[in-house]
Amino acid sequence: MPETKRAVVLLSGGLDSATTLAIAKSEGYECYALSFDYGQRHRFELEAATKVAQANRVEDHITIDIDLRKFGGSALTADIDVPKDRDEETMSAGIPVTYVPARNTVFLSLALGWAEALGAFDLFIGVNAVDYSGYPDCRPEFIEQFTKLANLATKAGVDNSGKFEVHTPLIHLTKAEIINKGISLGVDYGLTHSCYDPSSEGVSCGHCDSCQLRQKGFQEAGSVDPIAYQS
Amino acid sequence: MPETKRAVVLLSGGLDSATTLAIAKSEGYECYALSFDYGQRHRFELEAATKVAQANRVEDHITIDIDLRKFGGSALTADIDVPKDRDEETMSAGIPVTYVPARNTVFLSLALGWAEALGAFDLFIGVNAVDYSGYPDCRPEFIEQFTKLANLATKAGVDNSGKFEVHTPLIHLTKAEIINKGISLGVDYGLTHSCYDPSSEGVSCGHCDSCQLRQKGFQEAGSVDPIAYQS
Repeated sequence: MPETKRAVVLLSGGLDSATTLAIAKSEGYECYALSFDYGQRHRFELEAATKVAQANRVEDHITIDIDLRKFGGSALTADIDVPKDRDEETMSAGIPVTYVPARNTVFLSLALGWAEALGAFDLFIGVNAVDYSGYPDCRPEFIEQFTKLANLATKAGVDNSGKFEVHTPLIHLTKAEIINKGISLGVDYGLTHSCYDPSSEGVSCGHCDSCQLRQKGFQEAGSVDPIAYQS
Repeated sequence: MPETKRAVVLLSGGLDSATTLAIAKSEGYECYALSFDYGQRHRFELEAATKVAQANRVEDHITIDIDLRKFGGSALTADIDVPKDRDEETMSAGIPVTYVPARNTVFLSLALGWAEALGAFDLFIGVNAVDYSGYPDCRPEFIEQFTKLANLATKAGVDNSGKFEVHTPLIHLTKAEIINKGISLGVDYGLTHSCYDPSSEGVSCGHCDSCQLRQKGFQEAGSVDPIAYQS
């Protein structure tokens, strides 16, 4: 029997990363989940991440604190309003104010650091280029370039002891396809959190881009979103 | 008169980064210094970073806390002994245990995030490929690849509003050349800290790779190292 391979899976606690973790598990990886407390407005997603990690019985789950509010520059980390009730056309035009400068580069770099310390060569990230709301660091060419960097930045880039791969199983799926894939793998979407601007009790607003994409996804998947929304 | 350009300069508080900051200033950049409290054994370098930033009258100096001890895998962040009194041949053979997994990738990613929030396109890092002790993330090919990534990962990679450049003014200099360059620019090396394993009062050990490279550099530069060492 081949040795089980370890993978580091970025886990925000949202719908996409929960599905990505389920896919990594279904492919036989021993999963190490990595979350970030980066000063995001929607810190409720971290409680969701913990629940999703437990439900998937990951080998380990680490949350790294890294205060990106010190840089500012995003509606998720600075005092800028989160846009609400935007139509699809507006949502897909340009880069939204919820973009956090270099966020996926930072997150993947840290996943790479943990992977190297663990002896893992597989990273999983739930980026999506279909419903991606114009984030530059969700594009396939970004992922390709990061993979090249990973294979130069590390010991393996010197001694050829292995080759890093960045898995993006959702990158070409619609939200509805992601949800159907997750349901087929038994993902409990009731544990996940997507809203950028929840109430102080953690109830989703239903109107930010993230809530809208989620609700539309469940509709198109012909399925019911199990989480509550503010009325 | 052309507008002053902003640069984000990685500042550890060591000899190399202090010289790099002086070079960035001498080239006319408005400097934003970035340091990391990553759980390093030699946290005294952060006090040095603050002094060096003040001496150079930077526009701003941010220290980001990011606990890389959660990953382990390095003598600088885990309970592994720092090697002492190694000869040059041993020092340059292989990757030392003081290598921190993906550290420069993480640091440059965060510098990129701040640069993007500031509207800066220039990053400075004091990596060195001569005395570099075998760290994979100090090689010129790593820097080239990171630059390509930076130009895909960000808004500028979508709207072509600018092009990121990673400046490595020390990359091909010997330690003696770095010191002579710094002296010509007025760097006060008495403010800097290089030791990986200082005493609890912050006095340098004189025996780790970093102390040895520093001492040899001052000798070859025909100059006196102004810092104290344990007797």
